[in-house]
Amino acid sequence: MPIITLTTDFGLKDHSVAAVKGALLCKLKQPQIVDISHDISPFNYTEAAYIIKNAYHNFPENTIHIIGVDSELTPENKHLAIYLDGHYFICANNGILSLISSEIKPDKIVEINIHDTLEKKFSVLDVFVSVAAHICRGGDLDVIGKPILSMQELIYVKPSVNQQENQIIGHVIYIDNFGNVVSNISQKLFNTVGKGREFIISARSTKFHKVYKNYSKAINYDIPKEKREMEGKKLALFNSSAFLELAIYKSNPLSVGSAASLFGLKYLDTLTVKFL
Amino acid sequence: MPIITLTTDFGLKDHSVAAVKGALLCKLKQPQIVDISHDISPFNYTEAAYIIKNAYHNFPENTIHIIGVDSELTPENKHLAIYLDGHYFICANNGILSLISSEIKPDKIVEINIHDTLEKKFSVLDVFVSVAAHICRGGDLDVIGKPILSMQELIYVKPSVNQQENQIIGHVIYIDNFGNVVSNISQKLFNTVGKGREFIISARSTKFHKVYKNYSKAINYDIPKEKREMEGKKLALFNSSAFLELAIYKSNPLSVGSAASLFGLKYLDTLTVKFL
Amino acid sequence: MPIITLTTDFGLKDHSVAAVKGALLCKLKQPQIVDISHDISPFNYTEAAYIIKNAYHNFPENTIHIIGVDSELTPENKHLAIYLDGHYFICANNGILSLISSEIKPDKIVEINIHDTLEKKFSVLDVFVSVAAHICRGGDLDVIGKPILSMQELIYVKPSVNQQENQIIGHVIYIDNFGNVVSNISQKLFNTVGKGREFIISARSTKFHKVYKNYSKAINYDIPKEKREMEGKKLALFNSSAFLELAIYKSNPLSVGSAASLFGLKYLDTLTVKFL
Repeated sequence: MPIITLTTDFGLKDHSVAAVKGALLCKLKQPQIVDISHDISPFNYTEAAYIIKNAYHNFPENTIHIIGVDSELTPENKHLAIYLDGHYFICANNGILSLISSEIKPDKIVEINIHDTLEKKFSVLDVFVSVAAHICRGGDLDVIGKPILSMQELIYVKPSVNQQENQIIGHVIYIDNFGNVVSNISQKLFNTVGKGREFIISARSTKFHKVYKNYSKAINYDIPKEKREMEGKKLALFNSSAFLELAIYKSNPLSVGSAASLFGLKYLDTLTVKFL
Repeated sequence: MPIITLTTDFGLKDHSVAAVKGALLCKLKQPQIVDISHDISPFNYTEAAYIIKNAYHNFPENTIHIIGVDSELTPENKHLAIYLDGHYFICANNGILSLISSEIKPDKIVEINIHDTLEKKFSVLDVFVSVAAHICRGGDLDVIGKPILSMQELIYVKPSVNQQENQIIGHVIYIDNFGNVVSNISQKLFNTVGKGREFIISARSTKFHKVYKNYSKAINYDIPKEKREMEGKKLALFNSSAFLELAIYKSNPLSVGSAASLFGLKYLDTLTVKFL
Repeated sequence: MPIITLTTDFGLKDHSVAAVKGALLCKLKQPQIVDISHDISPFNYTEAAYIIKNAYHNFPENTIHIIGVDSELTPENKHLAIYLDGHYFICANNGILSLISSEIKPDKIVEINIHDTLEKKFSVLDVFVSVAAHICRGGDLDVIGKPILSMQELIYVKPSVNQQENQIIGHVIYIDNFGNVVSNISQKLFNTVGKGREFIISARSTKFHKVYKNYSKAINYDIPKEKREMEGKKLALFNSSAFLELAIYKSNPLSVGSAASLFGLKYLDTLTVKFL
């Protein structure tokens, strides 16, 4: 039995997530349903894409990922099912899938066309659940939609490189649970443009001259504990998703503050890497 | 194996929800446990009832719904198990079940009387889990309780119609994850009283003259996107649960605001529909 | 198939929890994965220990508990797997396990040494998941680590008794979902020191002379409902985990306030029991 994941902006208080799970349980025998996140900021495509992109490849092949963010069917927001990198994704054509597939091309994209056979009140419940059940039963994408070649693209969240190729301008695309600030500058882009040169990363008034491999690499364990700069130390690193992240070592957004609050950074703020 | 759902005001941080799940896993082999919601406002019967009412019918028949809201056993708060609309519900006799069964009569109500055979520290864990396991094993309700004919009723949350039958006064019973405001005025009551007449819906200083079938129906897709009134447009609609809802199209409570914040509405505030 | 529980400070919005679940689903066939809590305050050992201690014993024997709090491997933060009270725990050696095992000695402690065989970017995902899968398959702890005799201890969260043995000084170790204040003073310590004497419990300016067995025991049901002191009544009780708790009967932190807000108490504040 394949696995089905759910990513939505429904929140965990409302009945919506349970309604989707109930509907899946009606159509399938003992499916393995896993929540990726239901706390996507309402209608936030970038956030949804960032979270799914970092989660999906940890799941077994042929997992089905349902994405319930801005999924109401409108003349401008059709429903898609795609097969990409060995995984299925069901989502509205609102740009989220283009962000997920920015580096890996989908093997197949179909525009779902089974709406007339279903009640249409609540997209994710009726349409997405039916499509997921169809795929679980081994059904082909061509049966529930017509193949199309491209999807709606979102371009405002791509980092830019200047003509001299000595500067990358990126943006904050996510603030994580620890208040650490994730940018859209990938380690790959950083290395390609930087070619090993020295650099200054600037975000508002905060500057960094070094990028660590992980959090604890910023700590010098040869210095005795009481003299060591630890909790509260600021650092830049490539996070486990290989994006440039600005962090505070062992930060707590609820008490001492976090990278986001201490550096004064929020969603979509600018971040500059200048190579010397 | 039947499915067991959980709805509580325990929150997701404390150990309580996991303790209930652990206890179910001790008594049953591979049960399918689904969370409906654990973020019910503490001791809020209306909210619990609204969420369960909208979730339960999406699940397969004979699902067992455990409701852990104000469930401590007291002389005035006995424990019930009921069978209604093909589903089992286990809950204290505090009014929640009367709200769920307002339109559909239960086939069976029993007052649970197995407390003497169990430790009684923590109702939901000990008593409700035992009752759920009993039902899962195919046990009859009569074995774990004595049949009773009626349950405690909550009347303060019912909408009222005036004598001339040209006005409905309802209340806000729920604010959803998008900040949209749900009233207790059902589409059925609205149509029965309104008989197709024109109307004005008032909630504080905000008025509506139209009720849409869903969110996107409020948008005119014939007008070019840049001239179109979209994000931030206020609308009234019958939501997927067929209750009158006041909404903001694509609202975000964290940034631009929501129906609740922009219309200044909160739980139990008044809402009036005047038919002309 | 054994059950695997997860307790982390990852929060439910980020992709991290789903990544761990996806990795477990890749390595194991239909595991039963249960969330204990993902809302541990960042890096808060006491909170993590309190929650796991109260949750784990509700699960069947041989359940595997993964604890992802401050789990990055450093020279001073090794990874442990222990077998205690019939359960497995996988956690960094940061003191959390010493708090869980304060009353029950572990049967086995090993320091995990399989890191060289794995990618090491994200401890919980790579190392803890591999260890959990190893245990699930019936593997021995000796195969994935070297036995050690003791773990790092945390002493700042233990209650103290004065020399005359007529006073216990404890601390607030947890504020629960209802805003009730849990101390580290166990019923056992209270009874051992108190020997049945009268007492005064003080926390800031609030005092208690009685400890109830549960919430509703504080209410006198012989008095008619309208004259009865109920909602908002303050009380001290031994909670379902047998710790001294200061509570407000049917409190709601979001509206009328809670024990924590009304008594002005927060994490690690002092609580004194003076026996007369």
